Amino acid sequence: MAGNSYGTLFKITTFGESHGEALGGIIEGCPPGLALDFGAIQAEMQRRKPGQSAIVTQRKEADEVQFLSGIFEGKTTGTPIGFIIPNTNQKSDDYSHIKDNYRPSHADYVYEKKYGIRDYRGGGRSSARETASRVVAGAIAKQVLPTVKINAFVSSVGDIFIDKPYQDLDFSLTESNPVRCPDKATAAKMEEHIKEIRKSGDTVGGTITCVIQNVPIGLGEPVFDKLHAELGKAMLSINAVKGFEYGSGFCGARMKGSEHNDLFNEDGTTKTNLSGGIQGGISNGMDIYFRVAFKPVATLMQKQAVLTNQNTIVELQGKGRHDPCVVPRAVPIVEAMAALVLTDFYLLNKTYQK
Amino acid sequence: MAGNSYGTLFKITTFGESHGEALGGIIEGCPPGLALDFGAIQAEMQRRKPGQSAIVTQRKEADEVQFLSGIFEGKTTGTPIGFIIPNTNQKSDDYSHIKDNYRPSHADYVYEKKYGIRDYRGGGRSSARETASRVVAGAIAKQVLPTVKINAFVSSVGDIFIDKPYQDLDFSLTESNPVRCPDKATAAKMEEHIKEIRKSGDTVGGTITCVIQNVPIGLGEPVFDKLHAELGKAMLSINAVKGFEYGSGFCGARMKGSEHNDLFNEDGTTKTNLSGGIQGGISNGMDIYFRVAFKPVATLMQKQAVLTNQNTIVELQGKGRHDPCVVPRAVPIVEAMAALVLTDFYLLNKTYQK
Amino acid sequence: MAGNSYGTLFKITTFGESHGEALGGIIEGCPPGLALDFGAIQAEMQRRKPGQSAIVTQRKEADEVQFLSGIFEGKTTGTPIGFIIPNTNQKSDDYSHIKDNYRPSHADYVYEKKYGIRDYRGGGRSSARETASRVVAGAIAKQVLPTVKINAFVSSVGDIFIDKPYQDLDFSLTESNPVRCPDKATAAKMEEHIKEIRKSGDTVGGTITCVIQNVPIGLGEPVFDKLHAELGKAMLSINAVKGFEYGSGFCGARMKGSEHNDLFNEDGTTKTNLSGGIQGGISNGMDIYFRVAFKPVATLMQKQAVLTNQNTIVELQGKGRHDPCVVPRAVPIVEAMAALVLTDFYLLNKTYQK
Amino acid sequence: MAGNSYGTLFKITTFGESHGEALGGIIEGCPPGLALDFGAIQAEMQRRKPGQSAIVTQRKEADEVQFLSGIFEGKTTGTPIGFIIPNTNQKSDDYSHIKDNYRPSHADYVYEKKYGIRDYRGGGRSSARETASRVVAGAIAKQVLPTVKINAFVSSVGDIFIDKPYQDLDFSLTESNPVRCPDKATAAKMEEHIKEIRKSGDTVGGTITCVIQNVPIGLGEPVFDKLHAELGKAMLSINAVKGFEYGSGFCGARMKGSEHNDLFNEDGTTKTNLSGGIQGGISNGMDIYFRVAFKPVATLMQKQAVLTNQNTIVELQGKGRHDPCVVPRAVPIVEAMAALVLTDFYLLNKTYQK
Repeated sequence: MAGNSYGTLFKITTFGESHGEALGGIIEGCPPGLALDFGAIQAEMQRRKPGQSAIVTQRKEADEVQFLSGIFEGKTTGTPIGFIIPNTNQKSDDYSHIKDNYRPSHADYVYEKKYGIRDYRGGGRSSARETASRVVAGAIAKQVLPTVKINAFVSSVGDIFIDKPYQDLDFSLTESNPVRCPDKATAAKMEEHIKEIRKSGDTVGGTITCVIQNVPIGLGEPVFDKLHAELGKAMLSINAVKGFEYGSGFCGARMKGSEHNDLFNEDGTTKTNLSGGIQGGISNGMDIYFRVAFKPVATLMQKQAVLTNQNTIVELQGKGRHDPCVVPRAVPIVEAMAALVLTDFYLLNKTYQK
Repeated sequence: MAGNSYGTLFKITTFGESHGEALGGIIEGCPPGLALDFGAIQAEMQRRKPGQSAIVTQRKEADEVQFLSGIFEGKTTGTPIGFIIPNTNQKSDDYSHIKDNYRPSHADYVYEKKYGIRDYRGGGRSSARETASRVVAGAIAKQVLPTVKINAFVSSVGDIFIDKPYQDLDFSLTESNPVRCPDKATAAKMEEHIKEIRKSGDTVGGTITCVIQNVPIGLGEPVFDKLHAELGKAMLSINAVKGFEYGSGFCGARMKGSEHNDLFNEDGTTKTNLSGGIQGGISNGMDIYFRVAFKPVATLMQKQAVLTNQNTIVELQGKGRHDPCVVPRAVPIVEAMAALVLTDFYLLNKTYQK
Repeated sequence: MAGNSYGTLFKITTFGESHGEALGGIIEGCPPGLALDFGAIQAEMQRRKPGQSAIVTQRKEADEVQFLSGIFEGKTTGTPIGFIIPNTNQKSDDYSHIKDNYRPSHADYVYEKKYGIRDYRGGGRSSARETASRVVAGAIAKQVLPTVKINAFVSSVGDIFIDKPYQDLDFSLTESNPVRCPDKATAAKMEEHIKEIRKSGDTVGGTITCVIQNVPIGLGEPVFDKLHAELGKAMLSINAVKGFEYGSGFCGARMKGSEHNDLFNEDGTTKTNLSGGIQGGISNGMDIYFRVAFKPVATLMQKQAVLTNQNTIVELQGKGRHDPCVVPRAVPIVEAMAALVLTDFYLLNKTYQK
Repeated sequence: MAGNSYGTLFKITTFGESHGEALGGIIEGCPPGLALDFGAIQAEMQRRKPGQSAIVTQRKEADEVQFLSGIFEGKTTGTPIGFIIPNTNQKSDDYSHIKDNYRPSHADYVYEKKYGIRDYRGGGRSSARETASRVVAGAIAKQVLPTVKINAFVSSVGDIFIDKPYQDLDFSLTESNPVRCPDKATAAKMEEHIKEIRKSGDTVGGTITCVIQNVPIGLGEPVFDKLHAELGKAMLSINAVKGFEYGSGFCGARMKGSEHNDLFNEDGTTKTNLSGGIQGGISNGMDIYFRVAFKPVATLMQKQAVLTNQNTIVELQGKGRHDPCVVPRAVPIVEAMAALVLTDFYLLNKTYQK
């Protein structure tokens, strides 16, 4: 399996299966001499971890990060930061029922076909549990770029959308509710909806919007590694993501140039920001914002027809402890991936400076 | 500038500015012994090149590819394929008016800030002219994977959309009209709309849908390099792209799991295909389909306020020869990038085989 | 710090300092379905580990590998293999004397200058303890290529050289003595010499020769990534290495072409093998052999002048437990790095096959 | 074919065969705003090119570089620098005799086995003609690091060695004779020897020593990408190289630690420099010096037994125009590769700075 790394200079490589001994990773390229805020790292882990509220999976995982290298007397040394997150709540028996079955819209079937073998417990490497390692790296990346503000939040659950521009939202409220929606009234409706969905043994999709402020001008490489292309890849690499748009996004495709162009102010800022803070693949100093679509979780607490490895179809009852809606827990993951992209480009940009 | 390459095993690296001597690139990893169909390569170049119809830019460029290496007696040798595309129609004078100005929603300003210097002629490296090199590489990639069928087409221009599922379209009609929309009635409306837009000196956005058929099961690397994450990055790296969605896309975010799951048939195919042919980042053998949003071209044939490098705002009349709508010419670029992604994963997948 | 990885398809990334919690790494690209021989892995670790004989450092380390992922029911799954090697014998106090001092011919000074901070305990990341992770990966690589035979051995210690061609040696004797020299008489002299050197509080250099047999024709990429260039880099990346030569090596530079050319037999083998099994950067099926030079260990059990971080020179007595001669323990490291290089090229070569 | 690139941030990718249309390459990561000295670039090309003196091949090649991108009004723009070097003297007929034959100690046989096809004219991609592109990139790299002084010279031809330490040589004399040996008396002997060798239709090997001065402290990444490991790989990737040693090199393997350690002065310089300017893979500010071994050229102007593609052995008379000794023309190539390594690490090092 290739593709376990993200980044060129600031780089995370992850390993680990859902029900193995531990997850973990290696963070390379972290600047030396950084006094790490370990509380902030663990706080991000808390935001992602299961069991944190009534509307997410009730699985319990300590999700405690153990740093093994790269830090000396509380400071980064520049050497790679190795870390592990032990899997403390491995109930493998929960998954024996899927040993010989391929669940619909899961990765079971394609893993088996691609690799000829799979660790079926909890989805193995295909589990979103892998993203815990990304959150660790992202939390450190945020500390490398302290002035950049990254705020993601749930902007829709099913058909319930925030109907305000992000400028009218108070991001400090995002953590005030279990949905992670900074608009309180909408958050309440979303929460209610998720509870109903769960009761019916079903799941529901949603979107996350991310706003990045105080970005230096000049991040991104303008041909294949455009800033938004990397952000897009980073987001699409998160489990269950089906779409990515930034700035005007798909709406922009319906507009005329005379409506869409962002006219300049004399200081280089722009009067509008349909460009979403990125021009020609390079940050222009305006707010970067983008939206990420998540499909509904595929594991239902209902009976479903599954394919067996004997090429028959059988009914299977979903078991285990799963999220009825993935977006509340995905908010810190979106922020983490955004932080990784920005930090990598930030370091790269230093190489152009005299 | 980093980020001039795409791919790991099948890899294109490009160079060139809009008004320099030549564009070109190096294709690495092309399997040896392939008898190249040069006509097919040039045919793809024709689809992308300016001046091909009344609704695209009237700039004339021969866009003839000269292969310099990697091919011996008509066959690939496995060594890197170097090629150039001379710039034959360099009217640099057209651009002297933007030497000291930064046009709105162009890359002028960020290039200047990032690199401290820019080749302002025709946008320099930020020009979509760079994509000519991608089309060369994509046309070769298509020949590496002859059984895979990649069909992109214009699915919307402004508010004019094809209102049929792709299964009801005849892709052989895509090239029958200058818009590259396989639905004739819709194509006619789109063409009319683009002509009106052009008359008003304005531009308009649109979307391209791409359908990939006969994909082997198992392509894609399931963590950071998910097949759809790479497709997304590849598309977002094309000039003017604002969004990417695959399978159910943003609509999927509004659905319930019981609606969204693709139930299996006994042969491993699925009854529905909301997953868009990709499960857990790996192709599952069903059709891959995705949609790409393009913003309206930023260069208008109208007066617009621009920023000068003296920090003043002045009015500037757009000059030169530009597309009123970019999507018809972007169709072969979308296909080329898709072909590059698939070929790279196809070669990578060989390394897992016994 | 960049450069913690080796390989493209079969890839090891390592982390860890000499006196941190643990060393470890991630192995990517291991083919799935391989039934691992864990005993063979641990056996390689035993060959490298300290305290194994009277002529190496008496430091004790369990050097037990804990695999955390990528293996299911004894077989590789294709997913990344994460592993750690806990540091069980961290006597950091041994090193407090070097906190403010830079030892001659150590990395202390350059780490401090480059990163502005260093974990001084036991050399931190610059310690050869990092190579334990390489040995784990190399031991797995050997199992991916079971027919390829990699035999390294000590060919000189100080001025004591084996005076036979490798064809006259019985590699099965390499492990029969603590020096790892397959020529018994020479081994005895070397052992005696190392003991004397140790007694005097000094250290001594040496060379390792490595012979690789049964290599498939065609491994290596012939421009920048020539097989011998990668072998050279891999060897030079091992601590204390000062030189690398393959085939005729430095002697070849004194020869005439008429002496040096390897004439073919009709089956494509060659009558002589001054080329060292590699032609134009590609394996030709003949034995690959190369020689690696190791400098004497810099830590002496004598008083030495050191530089303080106050820019003064003081006398310092060497402490801790160190090797008087590094080559016996470096034999498995040379083999491991050779195995990594070959396995990576072996996987890459699959991508050319129909 | 993989492996056509060198470098991570400052990166050269090359293409081209000996007898194709042109050679060329793409240089990425060159800092923007650099006013290029084109005369200096062409001067390096002159040093490498054939036909420059009586002791090298009498083949004539203009070896004129045409820059196609990345340079605007004489300055680098930061975008990739594409360039070609047309092959003006393609006498392919010279090579029809090797179409069906594999010459001893050439890459003919392994190319055919690896790729199943080969451009046999002049060795195709395996020809040292490829290094012309490296010299272009190296000449630009030298301009990125103007204070660093890189001086390579021929230190031996066959058994004729310079018997002085490099400190006693005047590098300004290197170009004063066709051998590129700064010691005039030795140069004369070498020149005489090469002429005799040529007369006999034979060839001879040699060594090049390279000294790099004024290197900033801190270049190199200390685990797998040690500065000397990259220098070693870079040198071993040059055609005909059989060995690399730096600092004390193979002699160091015979020394004791008490002899080998470089004691510090109070300013951080060292009293001796057996380390060769590199400690733990990182430059320490002292002179870097290394030695590279080149085998004798394999093409002889004598009859030789060759293998046919019908598995028979036949006699073949060498034809064409070849070098009797490769080292004089390899001097600029060694310098170019050294410059590429240093520039890449120099840019990387910027990412650590506050």
